[in-house]
Amino acid sequence: MKVGYVQTSPIFGEKHKNFEQVYKFIGKTKADLIILPELFATGYTFISKNEAIALSEKKDGDTSQFLIELARKTGAIVVAGFAEKDGDHIYNSSLIVSDDEVVGIYRKIHLYYKEKLWFSSGNKPLKTYDLKGVKIGIMICFDWFFPETIRSLALLGADIIAHPANLVLPYCQRAMTNHCLVNRVFAVTSNRIGNEVRGEDNFTFTGGSQITSFNGDVLSSAPPDKVYVDFVEIDVTHARNKNINKYNNIIEDRRTEFYFLK
Amino acid sequence: MKVGYVQTSPIFGEKHKNFEQVYKFIGKTKADLIILPELFATGYTFISKNEAIALSEKKDGDTSQFLIELARKTGAIVVAGFAEKDGDHIYNSSLIVSDDEVVGIYRKIHLYYKEKLWFSSGNKPLKTYDLKGVKIGIMICFDWFFPETIRSLALLGADIIAHPANLVLPYCQRAMTNHCLVNRVFAVTSNRIGNEVRGEDNFTFTGGSQITSFNGDVLSSAPPDKVYVDFVEIDVTHARNKNINKYNNIIEDRRTEFYFLK
Repeated sequence: MKVGYVQTSPIFGEKHKNFEQVYKFIGKTKADLIILPELFATGYTFISKNEAIALSEKKDGDTSQFLIELARKTGAIVVAGFAEKDGDHIYNSSLIVSDDEVVGIYRKIHLYYKEKLWFSSGNKPLKTYDLKGVKIGIMICFDWFFPETIRSLALLGADIIAHPANLVLPYCQRAMTNHCLVNRVFAVTSNRIGNEVRGEDNFTFTGGSQITSFNGDVLSSAPPDKVYVDFVEIDVTHARNKNINKYNNIIEDRRTEFYFLK
Repeated sequence: MKVGYVQTSPIFGEKHKNFEQVYKFIGKTKADLIILPELFATGYTFISKNEAIALSEKKDGDTSQFLIELARKTGAIVVAGFAEKDGDHIYNSSLIVSDDEVVGIYRKIHLYYKEKLWFSSGNKPLKTYDLKGVKIGIMICFDWFFPETIRSLALLGADIIAHPANLVLPYCQRAMTNHCLVNRVFAVTSNRIGNEVRGEDNFTFTGGSQITSFNGDVLSSAPPDKVYVDFVEIDVTHARNKNINKYNNIIEDRRTEFYFLK
């Protein structure tokens, strides 16, 4: 299957310009799976909860309409971050869109830094989506820091991890090679670039979007500071064979009775 | 505290020569914690269960006597791999020795490759040892491939992971930087070098013993093909502060209710 990412440079609060940016770089590409960054439409560095609420949307808002149109034009499953409004809560979420509809929403369970001031923590278990013969797990940005996230998705059968991100720390890209290796899953980390100076915060996003193979190889690595699009062909069946030699199956070899994971 | 490793080149089956090799390189060094490789006294590449049994020892055998003497001379806590005999079973174990006595034994819970033919799997929960004001967790070689191992030890309060190894794959050293970062623990990976061609197996051990800091920095990295000794000073109190910024504590932020780790 053909999987890829768009590494964008969102303009804070300018949703329609940010949609156009994605269109401009995707062009007429046909693909099977496209990942966009976390909060790609709104920008990241909110300065108040009210500002975050004002930019948030219900699951049938402009962002999901844009993503449905993107999925239609490209033929792809699309996973992209958005600020989700649901009743009195807003979440740092990702939509997964396929065949003219929103098929699911993942709400980030590990909020980073001041996200805790604006967003409610994700309140649903990790899950995978079985679409067009591929099992897709979703995590968002800082979720990578918790090995339980990708491990859970792998144990739930994920072939590939869709990973929208707004990374500001330098560690994730290297970490993903390890996470993919020990779980034998593919991953697409779609990061953003650019700088946001808002309120007391000054974030430079680190780019380096990455497609990581089931054996830890880096199949695509974007520059740290340029808008960038890339796609690669992968064979997800590799992620379904958890044997690494004649004697070791990295899932069956787990010794859950001896772990202390409370 | 002063922590380090001896990266040796064991001669298969020649325990006393392998003891001498350690003495030769440790010299009169004083230290707080010394890690030796997995199975440093016996060598690794057994060709039959009987051969492994013949080289195995009870917990008061020659290897533990050697380690007690080493601990006495250096003033250090010593952690080192050995082939443990207990009743009808043999285990790929590590001794932890301090102040003239064996204070514990860890039996490897994730056996690699043909180890499954010779050794019984570890049959005790992961635990930490509180010695001289430092909490030490032990894992052996391939245990690194299972993120649950080091995560369990970190959740049990480990400041530092003692990690005897006989690595033949090229991934562990990089992985340890991630494991230490996301758990905020120190680790000392003591690997061996050399080549063993025995039976149908031909293993080249990859050296690169490594001391990894709580923030993922590599504090010491041994060459891939030379006997090598190194020590560094570390402040283990860093491992007890799990805050990475004003908002995030990487242990308290875990969302265990949403993980699927069966």
